[in-house]
Amino acid sequence: MNRFRVIYTHKDSACRLGKLQTARGSIDTPCFMPVGTQGSVKTLSPRELEESGAGVILSNAYHLLLRPGIEVIKKAGGLHNFMSWHRPILTDSGGYQIFSLALLRKISDEGVVFQSHIDGLRHFLTPESVIQIQDDLGSDIIMPLDECVHYPCGKDYAEVAMRRTIDWARRSKAAVSRNQQLLFGIVQGATYEDLRKECAQALVEMDFDGFAVGGISVGEPENLRYNMLHFTVGYLPQDKPRYLMGVGLPEDIIEAVECGIDMFDCVVPTRYGRNGTAFTSIGKLTVRNSPYIEDFRPLDERCGCYTCKNFSRAYLRHLFNASEILGLRLVSWHNVYFFLDLMRKVREAIKQDKFPEFKKEFLAAYNNSL
Amino acid sequence: MNRFRVIYTHKDSACRLGKLQTARGSIDTPCFMPVGTQGSVKTLSPRELEESGAGVILSNAYHLLLRPGIEVIKKAGGLHNFMSWHRPILTDSGGYQIFSLALLRKISDEGVVFQSHIDGLRHFLTPESVIQIQDDLGSDIIMPLDECVHYPCGKDYAEVAMRRTIDWARRSKAAVSRNQQLLFGIVQGATYEDLRKECAQALVEMDFDGFAVGGISVGEPENLRYNMLHFTVGYLPQDKPRYLMGVGLPEDIIEAVECGIDMFDCVVPTRYGRNGTAFTSIGKLTVRNSPYIEDFRPLDERCGCYTCKNFSRAYLRHLFNASEILGLRLVSWHNVYFFLDLMRKVREAIKQDKFPEFKKEFLAAYNNSL
Repeated sequence: MNRFRVIYTHKDSACRLGKLQTARGSIDTPCFMPVGTQGSVKTLSPRELEESGAGVILSNAYHLLLRPGIEVIKKAGGLHNFMSWHRPILTDSGGYQIFSLALLRKISDEGVVFQSHIDGLRHFLTPESVIQIQDDLGSDIIMPLDECVHYPCGKDYAEVAMRRTIDWARRSKAAVSRNQQLLFGIVQGATYEDLRKECAQALVEMDFDGFAVGGISVGEPENLRYNMLHFTVGYLPQDKPRYLMGVGLPEDIIEAVECGIDMFDCVVPTRYGRNGTAFTSIGKLTVRNSPYIEDFRPLDERCGCYTCKNFSRAYLRHLFNASEILGLRLVSWHNVYFFLDLMRKVREAIKQDKFPEFKKEFLAAYNNSL
Repeated sequence: MNRFRVIYTHKDSACRLGKLQTARGSIDTPCFMPVGTQGSVKTLSPRELEESGAGVILSNAYHLLLRPGIEVIKKAGGLHNFMSWHRPILTDSGGYQIFSLALLRKISDEGVVFQSHIDGLRHFLTPESVIQIQDDLGSDIIMPLDECVHYPCGKDYAEVAMRRTIDWARRSKAAVSRNQQLLFGIVQGATYEDLRKECAQALVEMDFDGFAVGGISVGEPENLRYNMLHFTVGYLPQDKPRYLMGVGLPEDIIEAVECGIDMFDCVVPTRYGRNGTAFTSIGKLTVRNSPYIEDFRPLDERCGCYTCKNFSRAYLRHLFNASEILGLRLVSWHNVYFFLDLMRKVREAIKQDKFPEFKKEFLAAYNNSL
């Protein structure tokens, strides 16, 4: 059963509006998923996320496995209950984290042995156990274990990792027991079009609920990134959601929507927020800097978030300068709102067949950095 | 004009209900003022404070003078606008901070020279300049510069400091220009009843809008503290509000309400909250501790705050364990709610002439620590 419906496809463009049905309600696409790696979207409460219009958030099986442990969350009645977030959750398998964070990992066709980056304890994960973990978490959209390589990667190893990713995807699909969880396939293949094609076609044949493009934003040059994305999307079916993992900045999201991507996640809104950098309609603004000492305007004069309706740049600068936690909160909240609002505008522009005009106007204002 | 009205005095007891009228609305007493030293009640938003029922908050002229500077706040239209808090604010003069935080202070009858504890810059404050600062801040209740001594303090010096405090109170009163700001007098005199009496009588004669008991909780033993409080309150008029500065824990507040104190402030709800210790109806609970790993109850089963309605001890413990800022927020918020709720219960008990019963029941449950 296909839980995704394309509502509207833009005239003369690949971008489209969709609805993805999950056990906890439907998600309007294109969408952005704020990242709650450890079961908390950093600094924000679930209420603030709801008020900002987040329709789905992302969490991470690898991090939750290490801390607090899956057993705790299972006993809490699942991740939604544990963190008090009652809209859809997508959990990443943690494949990417095993390859970027874990110590002393050893990979085989069977699975992967690694040491926790927190306490050095040894763990063994297989495609099947990763599905079981996400079953215990009770997330709405789940991801299979995959092998993500970094840039640059020789073709021989990229091919090994890609074939292993296909094999693990097949085992993951066979391991899914809950009918109401959506399982996506992840396309790997590094920067090689023939490998990407082979991977995409094999996954499409297995018929997943959606398809993710993995291995993007792993250190490759920008032009290569867009090429990889374009040719990968070309091998994905029209009638399934497409998720570009870990991307990205507003300009990256807009570019990818134009390729026909439906789903995004990225840590930048909260990471930049904690550093005092705000995303605004006229570019990024580092509010801790001294030019804002007596600047009583909101972060973004066009923004309707709680931060912009109530606080000035001068106050936010003071909070950062005085190490007040409220500063981290308010800029993170604004940034998450900014990304979610960007997606609302993207959807509206697609609906009106005006995405190219929207893109042009948005980027013209946004690139005129303060 | 007296802006305070005693609404009801408890049968056979000194505790009473009151209403204190300020330019930004009236305050029900006995009340607790959450502390926003640097223009932010640590980790909390103004909206969360309002929802918790905070009727008035405290901020600090000394801290705001050093950071961000009074000029910035004046240009923002005052402290209320700057921090987006539109209910009453009481500002402390910073006398206490000059004597506890500042470097190389030198006090004379004229005023006090000190170096900022942040950047070492030299400042000179007089009673008049401290009133001017609070006029610029636009706070609703303001405090004069005083000299607060620590325990133990020889009687000779305690007398010098007390007389200076009286002299500075007189100069402060003469310096007040805004009629809508309420100025309180601060009773000093260390642990000496005759000095406390002399100070109280001199201040009462000058006729302030309210009277604060200063120099309490400065290192003295507990039994001495209650004695000092009792005999000081004995020299204060019935028809003016009485404010016990910097106090305290729930048990201290209850004791002081019984002496006839109307106003309190203390950093403990947010300071303990940031350390993961919650105040609950059955005592303090350090949620970061391991017994709570799989404890899915709220912090306090009798509490109606956002934290208790949505999150378990297990989740809060996880947040602290994983260094997630949401943990600090949620426990701080709960604690502030707990203190404000305690005051609501105190007022209700006074209204019903049942304060002794309330005190007994509250302390019986509270002291049965988890």
